[in-house]
Amino acid sequence: MHRTHVKVLEDVLDANGTLARANRADFDREHVTVVNLMGSPGAGKTTVLEQVVRSLPGVRVGVLEGDVKGSFDAERIAALHVPVTQINTDPSFGGECHLDANMVRSAVPSLALGEIDLLVIENVGNLVCPAEFQVGEHARVMVTSVTEGEDKPLKYPLMFRACELALVNKIDLLPHLDFDLEKYLYHLDAVHPGVAHIELSATTGAGVEAWRDWLVEVATHGHVHA
Amino acid sequence: MHRTHVKVLEDVLDANGTLARANRADFDREHVTVVNLMGSPGAGKTTVLEQVVRSLPGVRVGVLEGDVKGSFDAERIAALHVPVTQINTDPSFGGECHLDANMVRSAVPSLALGEIDLLVIENVGNLVCPAEFQVGEHARVMVTSVTEGEDKPLKYPLMFRACELALVNKIDLLPHLDFDLEKYLYHLDAVHPGVAHIELSATTGAGVEAWRDWLVEVATHGHVHA
Repeated sequence: MHRTHVKVLEDVLDANGTLARANRADFDREHVTVVNLMGSPGAGKTTVLEQVVRSLPGVRVGVLEGDVKGSFDAERIAALHVPVTQINTDPSFGGECHLDANMVRSAVPSLALGEIDLLVIENVGNLVCPAEFQVGEHARVMVTSVTEGEDKPLKYPLMFRACELALVNKIDLLPHLDFDLEKYLYHLDAVHPGVAHIELSATTGAGVEAWRDWLVEVATHGHVHA
Repeated sequence: MHRTHVKVLEDVLDANGTLARANRADFDREHVTVVNLMGSPGAGKTTVLEQVVRSLPGVRVGVLEGDVKGSFDAERIAALHVPVTQINTDPSFGGECHLDANMVRSAVPSLALGEIDLLVIENVGNLVCPAEFQVGEHARVMVTSVTEGEDKPLKYPLMFRACELALVNKIDLLPHLDFDLEKYLYHLDAVHPGVAHIELSATTGAGVEAWRDWLVEVATHGHVHA
């Protein structure tokens, strides 16, 4: 995205907004709540999904996987007998670094919206652009790992501002890291005052229940309560 | 970057190539070797720089820091008494997710090329787009952390193919992770056969000497030897 083409890119964003609203109308018509799951490569997006998708009381869940290439994450989710659709962003040029509303729109027909209550869209691993492209979602969740350092909210503020929930993942590694959790949470709150967060670990299971409860609440009410 | 605008984006890439060649000509005229340092947010790009910039025998080094926002990394490098220039990508719209040749070109006048032998450009944390935008560099180094998982070369192949050296960082954490290093290296070699790699740890100092030697070699010869 090049500075001298800002006007063109604004047009792109407008087109994206139009398509996002069309997606949202489809989701609402079918009473499907949609969560856009974002974060760095390796933050643990697929893992935090694996932890909860099999056990969401009263909620039928489907997953849309976005990756530059391959279907590794989709296969992990499919192994849990959860319906999953894969979008690869690579045919365009060298791989898009985010999902946009048009890509999600192209996947809608394969999503069987009538058979699910909650759709989780796992975005391409990236702390910048996914936050710029709404895809029709009702809520955004961002996963960061404590291995990424305390400074990330200050360096990638748009992503941290765009989310309704921040998952702080891999907290089992804290004893082995030079990472100050209080400082991270202070930076998070500075960038996005009052945003909800959950501290998680796939290894110990810490926080998994709170994360599951949050998804069930969102799926039930169709939006995030303050 | 939107599918329906591929043509426009190809024009952007051509403009980028022209500017990258202009940057390269400036660097060559001043006998400055330029390394483009890329990787995910939190992979440890600044830390691997901190480990070596003070002790590169016979090499005067300068650093160009690219971030969406802030100058946290630049301050860390400046504290080591290494000349550093900051580029922020945020004024454009919501933050560019990579450096491009034009941004680097705008920084060239402040770089004092006559006073350095090696310029390291630390790119924005991102495993996708930085690999698509050459900035005039002689070599590309990619940092991944073992906390990111073994599948990254398969999911972000362009980045892993674009680099001349892969730094595998935070290996001190291996005992606490479910990470198969052999598998990661197998995937790396599948995507980019024969690419050099160095296993690193800022905590134990493992690999720091090899990384320093690699930089000195590149700075001395102006390119990467096979």
